[in-house]
Amino acid sequence: MTSAPAAPPARAYRRLGVEERRAQLLGAALSLFAHRAPDDVSIDEVAAAAGVSRPLVYRYFPGGRQQLYEAALGSAADQLTLCFAEPAAGPPTERVSRVLDRYLGFVDQHDAGFSALLRGGSVAETSRTTTIVDGVRRSAAEQILLHLGRGNGPGQKPAGPRLRMMVRTWIAAVEAASLIWLDEEKQPQAADLRAWLVDHLMALLAATAASDEETEAVVAELLSQETSDGPAGRLATLIIPVAGHAAHLLPPG
Amino acid sequence: MTSAPAAPPARAYRRLGVEERRAQLLGAALSLFAHRAPDDVSIDEVAAAAGVSRPLVYRYFPGGRQQLYEAALGSAADQLTLCFAEPAAGPPTERVSRVLDRYLGFVDQHDAGFSALLRGGSVAETSRTTTIVDGVRRSAAEQILLHLGRGNGPGQKPAGPRLRMMVRTWIAAVEAASLIWLDEEKQPQAADLRAWLVDHLMALLAATAASDEETEAVVAELLSQETSDGPAGRLATLIIPVAGHAAHLLPPG
Repeated sequence: MTSAPAAPPARAYRRLGVEERRAQLLGAALSLFAHRAPDDVSIDEVAAAAGVSRPLVYRYFPGGRQQLYEAALGSAADQLTLCFAEPAAGPPTERVSRVLDRYLGFVDQHDAGFSALLRGGSVAETSRTTTIVDGVRRSAAEQILLHLGRGNGPGQKPAGPRLRMMVRTWIAAVEAASLIWLDEEKQPQAADLRAWLVDHLMALLAATAASDEETEAVVAELLSQETSDGPAGRLATLIIPVAGHAAHLLPPG
Repeated sequence: MTSAPAAPPARAYRRLGVEERRAQLLGAALSLFAHRAPDDVSIDEVAAAAGVSRPLVYRYFPGGRQQLYEAALGSAADQLTLCFAEPAAGPPTERVSRVLDRYLGFVDQHDAGFSALLRGGSVAETSRTTTIVDGVRRSAAEQILLHLGRGNGPGQKPAGPRLRMMVRTWIAAVEAASLIWLDEEKQPQAADLRAWLVDHLMALLAATAASDEETEAVVAELLSQETSDGPAGRLATLIIPVAGHAAHLLPPG
């Protein structure tokens, strides 16, 4: 109840170019969709967050919430795909660790939206949103295969079906672990979860190598690039007492 | 163009009790939904498959295709949950192998419907169908934990968070592997896929045991029940040359 006249909403009348305005609306939508299920976000909220009118949102996104959701999802997918890029140099477990750190940072920043999207059952989920998510999974698999020396990189030969299935199932396991992590209020700490996911990948590589020649060659090449004080050396040392419990299963001698 | 009068559709006029009729319609729906995406199945087809009229289908399922789909899904979920039950006797890897054989048999028999359901993006997918699928995942996790000695069984203590996360990520990996298997025209053979999934579980247990005391105790107890000619003995033997590639990572001596 001040006597001064209310100031006009500062951002509502800023003049923006078409692309700039679209990016601004998308940014506002993304920050809302990141922390809420898509069905819980309204166009009015997007308009308020961007400091514009509801009709202006519809001028840029005539398909309303669904179109905004898909555009925001596409933009988040591009962002996530960028997280996967990692130079093919240094011990492979350390490269994967860096990728996972960026990935878990993304999950942390998009928690509720990430959960809602991957759990399904939302009316905002369509074959288009499924295609976007599958594209991200595919690019994650390609990046991992690249670091295993079986990607689309120069001089690499494509992975066989077993190795490819292994990589895709590990990615599914990482996704599932992320959802559990979000459910459990981001416990354990991201660094612990990352270390366990790297151990998971190494264990899966070793078990697959036991029955697949191609994977064994990949594992031999990967391990030759590892160091005793990195994640591979740590796991190799810690797993010795565990392996001891299997001594009675081995042929004598 | 025969001169004999057309025989009346034999099954259309069979008199069935309410429960019997409902079960018959559900059976017809399930066999259609098993091999097609839900959006591709019409009430007319369900009526034709059951040999009844369209209005009769609506009398039992006034919610139409969506209600039929959810009822069929619930019935398939019950069937799948029954596959998980396995007596807690004998080497644990052999118990898991039998469960996986039944699970892969189910996946084989419900191929396209299974794929469509788990891939998402169908309009038939709702929070109710998601709840049904999550219930199946939860009961799979409980069964596995029971065989690890950390379920709801008598005298068992509940699993800690790391072991629980491990089991749930393995289940996610099994699901992902099943979808890839369906995409790749059910290659490799189900028995090969099952053996690899059991190896995957053992490797994951070992890697988790390396950094989690509870899991190490579970692994010691599990391995004591294994035999050298079972899956655990086979993996232990085959993994030795793979482990050899890590020799340079271990502390000397």
